[in-house]
Amino acid sequence: MGGALRRGDKPVKWCYSAAIKIKARPGRTPMTVHTGRHFLQIPGPTNVPDRVLRAMDMPTLDHRGPEFAELGFAVLAAMQRVFRTKQPVIIFPSSGTGAWEAAMVNVFSPGDKVLMCETGQFAVLWRGIADKFKLDVDFIPSDWRHGADLAEIEKRLAADKQHMIKAVCVVHNETSTGCVTPPLEVRKLLDRVKHPALLMVDTISGLGSMEYEHDAWGIDVSVAGSQKGLMLPPGLGFNAVSEKALAVAKANPGMRSYWDWQEVISFNKLGTFPYTPATNLLYGLREAVKMLEEEGLENVWTRHKRHSAATRAAVKVWGLETQCADPAAHSPALTSVRVPDGHDADAFRKVVLENFDMSLGTGLNKVKGKVFRIGHIGHFNDLMLMGTLAGVEMGLDLAKIPHRSGGVLAAMDVLKGRDVVLIAKAQVA
Amino acid sequence: MGGALRRGDKPVKWCYSAAIKIKARPGRTPMTVHTGRHFLQIPGPTNVPDRVLRAMDMPTLDHRGPEFAELGFAVLAAMQRVFRTKQPVIIFPSSGTGAWEAAMVNVFSPGDKVLMCETGQFAVLWRGIADKFKLDVDFIPSDWRHGADLAEIEKRLAADKQHMIKAVCVVHNETSTGCVTPPLEVRKLLDRVKHPALLMVDTISGLGSMEYEHDAWGIDVSVAGSQKGLMLPPGLGFNAVSEKALAVAKANPGMRSYWDWQEVISFNKLGTFPYTPATNLLYGLREAVKMLEEEGLENVWTRHKRHSAATRAAVKVWGLETQCADPAAHSPALTSVRVPDGHDADAFRKVVLENFDMSLGTGLNKVKGKVFRIGHIGHFNDLMLMGTLAGVEMGLDLAKIPHRSGGVLAAMDVLKGRDVVLIAKAQVA
Amino acid sequence: MGGALRRGDKPVKWCYSAAIKIKARPGRTPMTVHTGRHFLQIPGPTNVPDRVLRAMDMPTLDHRGPEFAELGFAVLAAMQRVFRTKQPVIIFPSSGTGAWEAAMVNVFSPGDKVLMCETGQFAVLWRGIADKFKLDVDFIPSDWRHGADLAEIEKRLAADKQHMIKAVCVVHNETSTGCVTPPLEVRKLLDRVKHPALLMVDTISGLGSMEYEHDAWGIDVSVAGSQKGLMLPPGLGFNAVSEKALAVAKANPGMRSYWDWQEVISFNKLGTFPYTPATNLLYGLREAVKMLEEEGLENVWTRHKRHSAATRAAVKVWGLETQCADPAAHSPALTSVRVPDGHDADAFRKVVLENFDMSLGTGLNKVKGKVFRIGHIGHFNDLMLMGTLAGVEMGLDLAKIPHRSGGVLAAMDVLKGRDVVLIAKAQVA
Amino acid sequence: MGGALRRGDKPVKWCYSAAIKIKARPGRTPMTVHTGRHFLQIPGPTNVPDRVLRAMDMPTLDHRGPEFAELGFAVLAAMQRVFRTKQPVIIFPSSGTGAWEAAMVNVFSPGDKVLMCETGQFAVLWRGIADKFKLDVDFIPSDWRHGADLAEIEKRLAADKQHMIKAVCVVHNETSTGCVTPPLEVRKLLDRVKHPALLMVDTISGLGSMEYEHDAWGIDVSVAGSQKGLMLPPGLGFNAVSEKALAVAKANPGMRSYWDWQEVISFNKLGTFPYTPATNLLYGLREAVKMLEEEGLENVWTRHKRHSAATRAAVKVWGLETQCADPAAHSPALTSVRVPDGHDADAFRKVVLENFDMSLGTGLNKVKGKVFRIGHIGHFNDLMLMGTLAGVEMGLDLAKIPHRSGGVLAAMDVLKGRDVVLIAKAQVA
Repeated sequence: MGGALRRGDKPVKWCYSAAIKIKARPGRTPMTVHTGRHFLQIPGPTNVPDRVLRAMDMPTLDHRGPEFAELGFAVLAAMQRVFRTKQPVIIFPSSGTGAWEAAMVNVFSPGDKVLMCETGQFAVLWRGIADKFKLDVDFIPSDWRHGADLAEIEKRLAADKQHMIKAVCVVHNETSTGCVTPPLEVRKLLDRVKHPALLMVDTISGLGSMEYEHDAWGIDVSVAGSQKGLMLPPGLGFNAVSEKALAVAKANPGMRSYWDWQEVISFNKLGTFPYTPATNLLYGLREAVKMLEEEGLENVWTRHKRHSAATRAAVKVWGLETQCADPAAHSPALTSVRVPDGHDADAFRKVVLENFDMSLGTGLNKVKGKVFRIGHIGHFNDLMLMGTLAGVEMGLDLAKIPHRSGGVLAAMDVLKGRDVVLIAKAQVA
Repeated sequence: MGGALRRGDKPVKWCYSAAIKIKARPGRTPMTVHTGRHFLQIPGPTNVPDRVLRAMDMPTLDHRGPEFAELGFAVLAAMQRVFRTKQPVIIFPSSGTGAWEAAMVNVFSPGDKVLMCETGQFAVLWRGIADKFKLDVDFIPSDWRHGADLAEIEKRLAADKQHMIKAVCVVHNETSTGCVTPPLEVRKLLDRVKHPALLMVDTISGLGSMEYEHDAWGIDVSVAGSQKGLMLPPGLGFNAVSEKALAVAKANPGMRSYWDWQEVISFNKLGTFPYTPATNLLYGLREAVKMLEEEGLENVWTRHKRHSAATRAAVKVWGLETQCADPAAHSPALTSVRVPDGHDADAFRKVVLENFDMSLGTGLNKVKGKVFRIGHIGHFNDLMLMGTLAGVEMGLDLAKIPHRSGGVLAAMDVLKGRDVVLIAKAQVA
Repeated sequence: MGGALRRGDKPVKWCYSAAIKIKARPGRTPMTVHTGRHFLQIPGPTNVPDRVLRAMDMPTLDHRGPEFAELGFAVLAAMQRVFRTKQPVIIFPSSGTGAWEAAMVNVFSPGDKVLMCETGQFAVLWRGIADKFKLDVDFIPSDWRHGADLAEIEKRLAADKQHMIKAVCVVHNETSTGCVTPPLEVRKLLDRVKHPALLMVDTISGLGSMEYEHDAWGIDVSVAGSQKGLMLPPGLGFNAVSEKALAVAKANPGMRSYWDWQEVISFNKLGTFPYTPATNLLYGLREAVKMLEEEGLENVWTRHKRHSAATRAAVKVWGLETQCADPAAHSPALTSVRVPDGHDADAFRKVVLENFDMSLGTGLNKVKGKVFRIGHIGHFNDLMLMGTLAGVEMGLDLAKIPHRSGGVLAAMDVLKGRDVVLIAKAQVA
Repeated sequence: MGGALRRGDKPVKWCYSAAIKIKARPGRTPMTVHTGRHFLQIPGPTNVPDRVLRAMDMPTLDHRGPEFAELGFAVLAAMQRVFRTKQPVIIFPSSGTGAWEAAMVNVFSPGDKVLMCETGQFAVLWRGIADKFKLDVDFIPSDWRHGADLAEIEKRLAADKQHMIKAVCVVHNETSTGCVTPPLEVRKLLDRVKHPALLMVDTISGLGSMEYEHDAWGIDVSVAGSQKGLMLPPGLGFNAVSEKALAVAKANPGMRSYWDWQEVISFNKLGTFPYTPATNLLYGLREAVKMLEEEGLENVWTRHKRHSAATRAAVKVWGLETQCADPAAHSPALTSVRVPDGHDADAFRKVVLENFDMSLGTGLNKVKGKVFRIGHIGHFNDLMLMGTLAGVEMGLDLAKIPHRSGGVLAAMDVLKGRDVVLIAKAQVA
């Protein structure tokens, strides 16, 4: 947190090399002190811009007064622009998990059938919510190294002649693996098989970091959170909702209160909320969207792709594998990297944290210890990426993970633009 | 927000008297510009201390890293001290409404019978959640001018020989009326009639502003929020939970996920949370509890009582009535004031906001237009109170609400301590 | 500082009435804990708006880069608008005292004769600088209860046939007494007697709080600081300089370096400074002037006059005297109040600080212990003033200073606008 | 500033490769938008820690009240610990340039003889101040690639049998060249030749980044500023003063006021200052020294040396020369790098700024265009350094400056600790 870490109340001494450390603090584990900025390179929460933190650092308003209404209208309109929708966006004081639950309880009742895709841990967690609300989940398995199996989705939908499947749920950017599932392709296959199921998309770590078109792609329910591409601290969850989804919700007798879309939407018409909103996070949201729009959303997406390409160039030189095994599915927001068998990704992460004050993402669930994840999402730039990749490369060395050096040079080649035409094409494609 | 208000994009000119206003801006409504600090005197969200805002204005942490765990353990322990409990406290990224819902869905299943008390609008809203989750609510009516009807609660419990009533729910500090219901008295009557119902208490605007003893008073579920006596922006909800309530929850088959206590408690053992917590609000929470403890919780309670007494002294001189009609039930956190028949409390509030840049609380539901509410809760002191009361007194005059002047002098008499023995006694009582 | 005061390392307990205090902390002086905001009602440093503090709370820039130049040009132009001049404004990283010294060393050499006026302590201090730089000061005495003696200035200038007097120096708003000297009247008398002396004005606590026209009033050197009407923390000093003063400076062989106007002006042409500027204070300056202009400078002046009038109405009811004995010379920025003989103004100030956490200005030099000063300058509004005046009135009572109660009511009458026509006229006059 | 740069009022679009830029904005210079944090890698002002900025972002105090005195005593004691002195430290609201002037005007009168050493631009500027105050400067020339010529100093002192030389002035860390002059060696030679001249040291960019011992090294006057190793924004200047220097100052009839040590020291005894101090910068100073001490001053020095070694390792691989030609004199705080003949260091800096949003230091005076300077001073760490060096290496490529790639790898080798024993030895030596 920009300061010196303490263990208990006593400040700890810190030295810079193994040799000095041993001498200085015999018998004690060396400990990292924060000099300079922590590198928060997990795939979310992401680095929050100073402008956003300062916007939040303001007195709270009367959430029923006229000045609040200006704020309320502003953030609702801003989020419509970010989701690329003319439809309502619901903002919850909650984590992204809450927005998942909201998506579920508004449109489903116990026993409803949904088609979900096991693309990774976040898909598993979302499915867990469906289970808790007693939905009948058809879960398409996966090897956690690809996006959702589109052919299998299409097959199952085609087979569902009675249209028992109420919704297809996919994770746009599976944060545990770094694999992207293109929502537009799911829309296309739904249309091909003429299935009326809702299309529900978790774009928690996608929104604000990669192309997303709620309306143009025919999404019915989009789920997002504040702490990823939106560059805010955690604490806000979002649902963008199509007319069709709203109609389904209206007809849904399932129990709900906090997450109920209808009530929020009716209050939103006056720029306010049914219960006390997280006002200071809304201040931050207004500023964050302003920043995204000053840069230009398309430029934001391009930036993320470019940093992802540079990261993969480094990984390739290191001789490591990305968890994502499909070249077309690499996430612009994060890169999940496999460590060779016999090595522990979490031991490596610990080395990086202790030596270089950088947080990397852990492997989750079935890839625990097998992968580490590099977040290059949110408020980020070339030199922050280079610091990040240098930290990874030095960490691989210190943790004695077999690799070739020079990944950072390959990343620099990408950033310098030598491969730029290629990238630009990839971006356009 | 500490700055100049704008209408659209154009800064608006501001003058200081009706006469000058008309001259300066013919045909246009005058508008308040923020010079100096806004007076946020609604009964929550309350004024957030600079120390708390600055603590929140820090980079977000890896919520799975070791430094976060220190924060997690710190805020969990801090909240136990504030609730006065050795039992678990659950912290949700949510509004207080979410914490209400959490209290309900963890212990109840549809059809469960609960005894609730209509002390005012917040009791009505909480009951609304119970309805949505299909509980069987026995709602004891009230005139919105007293705390809960303890005799009636006791009568109904005594009559419930089969112990069908699963819980008694009371609002500790009814923010819509300024009437307090003493939870300890409810505990005593439960014990008298030997009824096993859970005691559930909404202390959203009570915690941190008036005496509260989760363990000593035998509360089973306490519900609180961040934006009142805890002096934080909105965005955190709390449940403190007795062993008995935990056992009930464990046995409860009702559906829940986001609000599920068990999962949160199991993660909390490692200082972490099942889903991404609202980290920056937790920074603020740590600092806010530190401030409460530097002052001393007992001193905090005394301070609120004293400001409440001073406010009532002013109201009495003005010749107005408090909404709370029971002298023993006056809230230390807010004072709800009735305007004479034929006058509109909201028109008065508008005059105060436009002339003096102060937000007062509106009358809710059946007292809409009939009362205004003065918040004297949270980060507050004598001179802020005097500014507040002067604004009310001047506003009464400008809004032509019949009253006697000099309320501010009566309040000053209390603050100067002339009535101090009396107050001190009242505080002890 | 928005938090709890500590004595040494141990947090101190705080109670609210003398009785409780004695009981709680036998044998110990009670101590104020900050709950709520401190009332900083000295006549500078003044309350800094959140917007300004947040603007300063940003990473420092390269002071030689293109982005800095934008800032540099912006603040230089902004200060020209605030001084109402087309001439250069020099910004020093210094206190106002530094800006005094700068004004002296640029235009004078040892032995130069200057005419100064002893309006109060700040005039005395400025004269002290002149002495240290070995100027030949002709100091017109005063009773510290009026502005400068204009007739005497005119007389001495008229008598100076050889034009030995190089400059007349006056303090626009004498912060130690609350008496204003109108610079335009000094210009007029200089013109009447056709004396070529420079007109140098200390408007440290005048600029941004009362009418000031560097060009239109024919001022040669204006001296200001950041921590008064400009609503910034201390750390910036300003000189606005006429063409004539620049020419005098160019011809002046006196030694100077840090304060040298010419060098600053030549760097300013590129938006930069000869040495590292106080960048973060410049961020704040840009925002502060933006706020002044959103409100409108004329409105800012009116607001100060109105608060001054309300304060004097209170003082009159209390039966106390203002230090300023000339009704036409009352400062809009502060009111200096005399305590009756036999009473100690500093003992009173201590009572106010300890009981109500409000800082009032002390009496300086020959009025030490005889006056206290109420600042109503800068980022301020009606209810902050009422809190301030209530604190004074309660403090008078606690400190047993003879007075009539009800001053606050008189102030409220002014603020409610009953006397508004009168005030408006007074303002225009 | 953590946000998007604007040209005038219109946000500018930003693309990531030359190709895209040309397409997107034909005929217009591409412009950098701030995504992620700006890299402020000039050798001061340096990166300010969030903790320090937040500490400054607090309401200003009454500088004559008891709470201020606590702050005053705290920062005065803190600065004594940082300077390693029991003697007074004077804190000025000024730039470092002001602290230079203060050092001069307190001990010298016009005509006094001083021995100064032309180690680079900052030595030249300091000498310029001496000239302006009409001192008789004996200026030992240099090639700007070494520290001060100690042999020559000794020779001239030895030759000064009448002890006309009142002081020897050296720049500890010459920020324009990256060459260090060891003050202790100057002390030793003064002692060797038994010359009573004062030893005056500019350690503006040395203090807080490299070993410094005001007392133990026998320094008479140390000059420092806030915006370098002290990790603060600019706006504070410091003098640490020996008893001998104080005695000289007391006897010195030279004119001074703002900079007068005696007056400041006498006020400091009460924890206060003769004129309004830059209070909010003092808040920051208290926090900054706390951070330095949490890390441990010795660890801070080691960290700077290590980053300097890593930077030089990169420079060596690039095949470039450091401006400092003496291996024993390399600055731990910055590295000044020469570009090959025929290349323009400022054009290179512009490429780096526009492409990678990093500010590097310009070449000053006679090395204008010939060197660029990399600051690795203040609040900094390994990964920030790697981002910095990657930015330099990519910039060299884009600016077509002949170099070998792979400097970043060499730096990583140092940071990983392979050369650590060597470094540790070098550090001790």
